[in-house]
Amino acid sequence: MKIGIVGLGLIGGSLGLDLRRLGHQVLGVSRQAQTCELAIARGAVDQASPNLAILGEAEVIFICTPLDAIQPTAEQLLPHLSPATILTDVGSVKTPVVEAIAPLWPNFVGGHPMAGTSEAGIAAAQPNLFAQKPYVLTPREKTPVKGVQTVAAIARSLSAQVYYCSPEAHDRAVSWVSHLPAITSASLIAACLSEPDAAVLELAQKLASSGFRDTSRVGGGNPQLGRMMAQYNREELLRSLQYYRQSLDQLITHIEQEDWTALEQQLQRNHQTRTKFLNPSAG
Amino acid sequence: MKIGIVGLGLIGGSLGLDLRRLGHQVLGVSRQAQTCELAIARGAVDQASPNLAILGEAEVIFICTPLDAIQPTAEQLLPHLSPATILTDVGSVKTPVVEAIAPLWPNFVGGHPMAGTSEAGIAAAQPNLFAQKPYVLTPREKTPVKGVQTVAAIARSLSAQVYYCSPEAHDRAVSWVSHLPAITSASLIAACLSEPDAAVLELAQKLASSGFRDTSRVGGGNPQLGRMMAQYNREELLRSLQYYRQSLDQLITHIEQEDWTALEQQLQRNHQTRTKFLNPSAG
Repeated sequence: MKIGIVGLGLIGGSLGLDLRRLGHQVLGVSRQAQTCELAIARGAVDQASPNLAILGEAEVIFICTPLDAIQPTAEQLLPHLSPATILTDVGSVKTPVVEAIAPLWPNFVGGHPMAGTSEAGIAAAQPNLFAQKPYVLTPREKTPVKGVQTVAAIARSLSAQVYYCSPEAHDRAVSWVSHLPAITSASLIAACLSEPDAAVLELAQKLASSGFRDTSRVGGGNPQLGRMMAQYNREELLRSLQYYRQSLDQLITHIEQEDWTALEQQLQRNHQTRTKFLNPSAG
Repeated sequence: MKIGIVGLGLIGGSLGLDLRRLGHQVLGVSRQAQTCELAIARGAVDQASPNLAILGEAEVIFICTPLDAIQPTAEQLLPHLSPATILTDVGSVKTPVVEAIAPLWPNFVGGHPMAGTSEAGIAAAQPNLFAQKPYVLTPREKTPVKGVQTVAAIARSLSAQVYYCSPEAHDRAVSWVSHLPAITSASLIAACLSEPDAAVLELAQKLASSGFRDTSRVGGGNPQLGRMMAQYNREELLRSLQYYRQSLDQLITHIEQEDWTALEQQLQRNHQTRTKFLNPSAG
């Protein structure tokens, strides 16, 4: 199959590495000529160009740009395509993307492979990035079945676990497990910075170990990605933040009122619940 | 040296494994005869007994019980000791422990080796648990220097990094990097449970990956330990929770008001700050 990839970063590059290994012909587009050269050198694409016209004959095209570039990229791309071309994306928020592109291109299938590393860029691309990871597809009722099946078959060929849901359900679910943790984790780091006693802050930095490292990780990630996630999934994020704030306030109340039985019961529920999140088949 | 250990769990057992390897004679006490047998079989102690009298000739004694058993254990132990015996503990909160025991036994040195795993009990004991980990000592002005130096030398012989501070500074610092993260992480799990739409919750459980796993880890830990940490470090924990709540509210406000510049700036500061916490020499 001829497959196009726009945006040759960690996701686009990793996708290209796998798709070429599976025997597809991969055509890549990046605004930067240097990235195009690197993608060819790394074996992530067969051909690459800064010009979207190179994708005219692609049967399926993956838009792998940052969230805020997905819609403009699609609009610039459409004039080059034949009506049968299947368009998909890899954005981490789905409702605004699907609402913007589906009316312009019926053969659009919203997608979100939930894979990544702390690195970015084509240099960080790696084979098998998507294996055993969720790959969510968010077709609408009117989306042609062939397009959905084609993207799903490609995702499965990457050994990803394919899930289907509405764009709205996707955005609500990822708000819980991805966007809310990023903000609560960011608040933790910001709170430490507000400690007025410099000596205590210095001591805290020396004593910080695995607990702090893990809890602060996603809040210390890429600032642009964090901002865009909040911007594009704003309503769902605010909704889950309101629930979070209620849970936090309840735990604070237990501690203020020295209700240690209630605190320990909640921690017991957490202990059991977390297992379900990390191992759904156990739930 | 003859060294006593009361409480043969993960910390006490691991301590014993290292101390025996270093050539010390290790005497262990556990309330449960079965634990005593297991500790001997695992090579964590030379002798073990449920009877504290076994420690009469120990030169240094480590109390390695849970927080709420440290003071009662010390009180039962003191009648068996000669005045030169150095007493220390490994509790994760220091002010209440030091305030309770130092008046009863001048030769008491509060200590906190910041090492652990998700496992508990003598079966989880392992060599080198303390290597390259912080080991905080919290002597008071009146604590005899010889006692402090002896415990510090033992900690260094475990390859731990020894820090000195007041019990109060310790409790404030660990509130930031250990106890606050436990509560914010617990709130995250509790908040997810409050999602009223069961289908969304089920989808969220399927999509939860490394970001959720890391951010929720310490909040899903041992409920009794979490409760005791809050109980014994209540004031400092409530203080850091107030700062946390302010930071959270500010991020929520940025998102509500769509002030994406302010949000990205805060995330940028976080990104830089987190490096200092995890690599203090870089700060």
